[in-house]
Amino acid sequence: MNGARALLETLVGHGVDTCFMNPGTSEMHFVAALDDVAKMRSVLCLFEGVATGAADGFARMSSRPAAVLLHLGPGLGNGLANLHNARRARSPVVAIVGDHATVHWKYDAQLQSDIETVARNVSAFVRTSHATEALGADAAAAIAAAEGPPGSVATLILPADVSWSEGASPAPRPPVAPTPPATDDAQLDAAAAALRGGSPCGVLVGGRACSGKTLELAAAIAAATGAKLFAETFPARLERGAGRPPVERLGYLAEFTAMQLEGTAHLLLVDAKSPVSFFAYPGRPSDLVPEGCQVHTVAGPDDDVDTALVALAELVGASPVHTPRQQAGTPGMPSGALDAAAVAAVLGALLPEGAIVSDEGNTSGLFVAGATAGSPPHDWLCLTGGAIGQGLPVALGAAVACPDRRVVALEADGSSLYTPQAWWSMARAGCDVTTVLLNNGSYAVLNMELDRVGAEPPGPRAKDMLDLGRPDLDFVSLARGMGVPAERATTVEELTTALARSFATPGPSVVEVLVPSIL
Amino acid sequence: MNGARALLETLVGHGVDTCFMNPGTSEMHFVAALDDVAKMRSVLCLFEGVATGAADGFARMSSRPAAVLLHLGPGLGNGLANLHNARRARSPVVAIVGDHATVHWKYDAQLQSDIETVARNVSAFVRTSHATEALGADAAAAIAAAEGPPGSVATLILPADVSWSEGASPAPRPPVAPTPPATDDAQLDAAAAALRGGSPCGVLVGGRACSGKTLELAAAIAAATGAKLFAETFPARLERGAGRPPVERLGYLAEFTAMQLEGTAHLLLVDAKSPVSFFAYPGRPSDLVPEGCQVHTVAGPDDDVDTALVALAELVGASPVHTPRQQAGTPGMPSGALDAAAVAAVLGALLPEGAIVSDEGNTSGLFVAGATAGSPPHDWLCLTGGAIGQGLPVALGAAVACPDRRVVALEADGSSLYTPQAWWSMARAGCDVTTVLLNNGSYAVLNMELDRVGAEPPGPRAKDMLDLGRPDLDFVSLARGMGVPAERATTVEELTTALARSFATPGPSVVEVLVPSIL
Repeated sequence: MNGARALLETLVGHGVDTCFMNPGTSEMHFVAALDDVAKMRSVLCLFEGVATGAADGFARMSSRPAAVLLHLGPGLGNGLANLHNARRARSPVVAIVGDHATVHWKYDAQLQSDIETVARNVSAFVRTSHATEALGADAAAAIAAAEGPPGSVATLILPADVSWSEGASPAPRPPVAPTPPATDDAQLDAAAAALRGGSPCGVLVGGRACSGKTLELAAAIAAATGAKLFAETFPARLERGAGRPPVERLGYLAEFTAMQLEGTAHLLLVDAKSPVSFFAYPGRPSDLVPEGCQVHTVAGPDDDVDTALVALAELVGASPVHTPRQQAGTPGMPSGALDAAAVAAVLGALLPEGAIVSDEGNTSGLFVAGATAGSPPHDWLCLTGGAIGQGLPVALGAAVACPDRRVVALEADGSSLYTPQAWWSMARAGCDVTTVLLNNGSYAVLNMELDRVGAEPPGPRAKDMLDLGRPDLDFVSLARGMGVPAERATTVEELTTALARSFATPGPSVVEVLVPSIL
Repeated sequence: MNGARALLETLVGHGVDTCFMNPGTSEMHFVAALDDVAKMRSVLCLFEGVATGAADGFARMSSRPAAVLLHLGPGLGNGLANLHNARRARSPVVAIVGDHATVHWKYDAQLQSDIETVARNVSAFVRTSHATEALGADAAAAIAAAEGPPGSVATLILPADVSWSEGASPAPRPPVAPTPPATDDAQLDAAAAALRGGSPCGVLVGGRACSGKTLELAAAIAAATGAKLFAETFPARLERGAGRPPVERLGYLAEFTAMQLEGTAHLLLVDAKSPVSFFAYPGRPSDLVPEGCQVHTVAGPDDDVDTALVALAELVGASPVHTPRQQAGTPGMPSGALDAAAVAAVLGALLPEGAIVSDEGNTSGLFVAGATAGSPPHDWLCLTGGAIGQGLPVALGAAVACPDRRVVALEADGSSLYTPQAWWSMARAGCDVTTVLLNNGSYAVLNMELDRVGAEPPGPRAKDMLDLGRPDLDFVSLARGMGVPAERATTVEELTTALARSFATPGPSVVEVLVPSIL
């Protein structure tokens, strides 16, 4: 069999059964082989950043890698921003980048460039497959590297002749990785001593500790010992809602985080990084750990977080019975004109059970997390790497991973315009995604940041660079152009009707909401 | 003064007076300084690939660099594909990539990544500015590197604290680069001997030899000696039309180029690469120079091409009087239903004098170059690096560089969807750009390539990955969503009316044309 087919069979043999793609000529054998490997689902994307973000969303909801198929260095470049977000989410992604045939390299044809160099920016594993016979094994190594732990972006560069030549065979799954190292007893003892010591403690969860039994046990430990429970600012996936542990996320603004952590004497990290400021600001610290606070690592990204938490729970006498549970309840429904708070209240009231919220609502979406805290159980997916343009692609990937759940893409005007092509793929793939497009007509966060970084008061030319008007963007028209039904809501009643209709209708739809900036 | 202001003053002091930007928090001081440096024109782009492609288009038409302002590694990633095209066009571009403050690096905050690594993929010059006092000089070095020769992408990485700190000063223009090396007399003698020797010769122009007096002299040399004149497949800028030298471009398909060059005994390269196949194909050669043909380099990218051509003309007795001139004349106007040939004929008949055509029409645009050969004089800008998504941004940049000329973006459905955000910037900047959007509902070129690379006959799942239907894309709606007037033409008469209206109306507009695939 040829390389392409062996690659596809290796992928599906290892459980990688979904590929988000934007192929070109050098990937045509891969595309042709799709008809031979029925277990592989392929989702066409019109822009590479959609494919890479979708793979991230898929991995966050399924805990297994998807593949993406990209076209040489420029295709990888277009997909890089959302691979950056995937790297920060520790999402497993197998990025397959087609290249010119090896015999063609020396001619430096138009599309040639140094692909490996670009890939290193985001990848824990980079390999160019140099021989058809080795392609199956190269793919198996990439998949294993992607799976981790920790989950990573693994990039396999696939020259066209390695793909088209005969002599390949699928590679078997390599032996299971060795058990992670045992817990660090000294660390756990110190953490337990801190929790039992009477000083104010914080438990900061991130990564895998933001969902399932892991989150419940971390919450139980905090509750049993009187510690505060925090989540990192932008978790890849946070399980929340009625009946689940309530968790306070650290704020995006350093000043806010400082208030949250004030007085904390011990901060326990559970698959989370020690908190740092998102950006640096003149004269302010980047490290957000309060003066004198001691930081303890309960489990890092390479550790077995569940084993560590079980051991810690035993040391402090915590058990699942201590797990606090969020009460059901939503804010009252407002009426009349829409603003950011009213949109949040409507979403709090209507969010369906099992919803998956892809949150790139930025400033206008600020109140939605609060308003949905007591909504039926749902998942919350955040902008892990700060590279905007993630929200719609992650929603696409989450919907492909979870076809029986409603996905809500909480999206902002500026952010949506990096990857609006995701709408078309949602329609093509029949994804149940409701986009709530919060249109305030500006890069509002930058108006705030301009002041916070201590820049001089902005003149008209600076303000012009933060303004999304002249001409106004019309997201209803944009979405319809991508083949997705769309409508505009200007009152609470219209938004309620539009959301109810969208949640009840299979497939994607977009609801544009005009809101004044909160800043 | 702070670093940002010194950087802006250095840029405008060196003639870099236009910046295409998509800034974020780390670039806020640069943005704030725009009000202090009135000579800098800033053009906001909603996606980084628009900014980088626009800088390329600007450079092609003005022969001087524009700056782009991008936000950390992900912003550079989003701009990489069109920087790749700019590199292949040898366009001078000063890419300024904002970074976290140097004091923030060690915290590995969410947006942090290795920016220099990514930049090397496209840049002849990469430098991170480490001190405010050095920023002016760093910027001057970047500008000089961008200007070349040859024109290059120069990337200056700008940490936020280097930008916001005081103590900077603008750097003066460095001394002019030394004169390029003298011509290689032995090479020129050999080229002249070949031209005079009676065997079939070809003169292949590229780069700077595709416009102005340089093109005219190359054409005169070919005409005076009976050599055939060819241009490279995808010139950055080709001057053509009535009264200018007619030039045959080498074909995209290797088979076609082979026919064009068949029997050529000597091929003279004038700022052009020796021809190679765009992609490799199983069992076919990548090198397109005919067997036994001798290749002579008259001038390479680092050479003074005009001096070389003057010397060669003297050796072979050619003078400007020999320059052939294209006769004026356009195909007759068809009527009724539209197909690719009819669209080409209409454009041939209506193309305004001084038009600038940004050609990313791909398969559906194939006949337009032929139909406009005798149209009034115009410029033709090609997809130099093969990374689709260039056409609309290059049109934007060309229009900013040449506000008194009509730009025609000849665009295909698939290609346009990598960078449709360019339409909004055209409207914001008041650019006279007419987009002719050729919608055939598929990645048509891939249907052809799938067969040419020798893949198995495609099944339904493979074909699905090349099809842009389900749902159909509506480019009128998309363009209107970006704030640009748009209409759809289904007959020759409608297209004629729509183009006439667009050419007569200031600002951008989009005409969508539904055409059957030519394949």
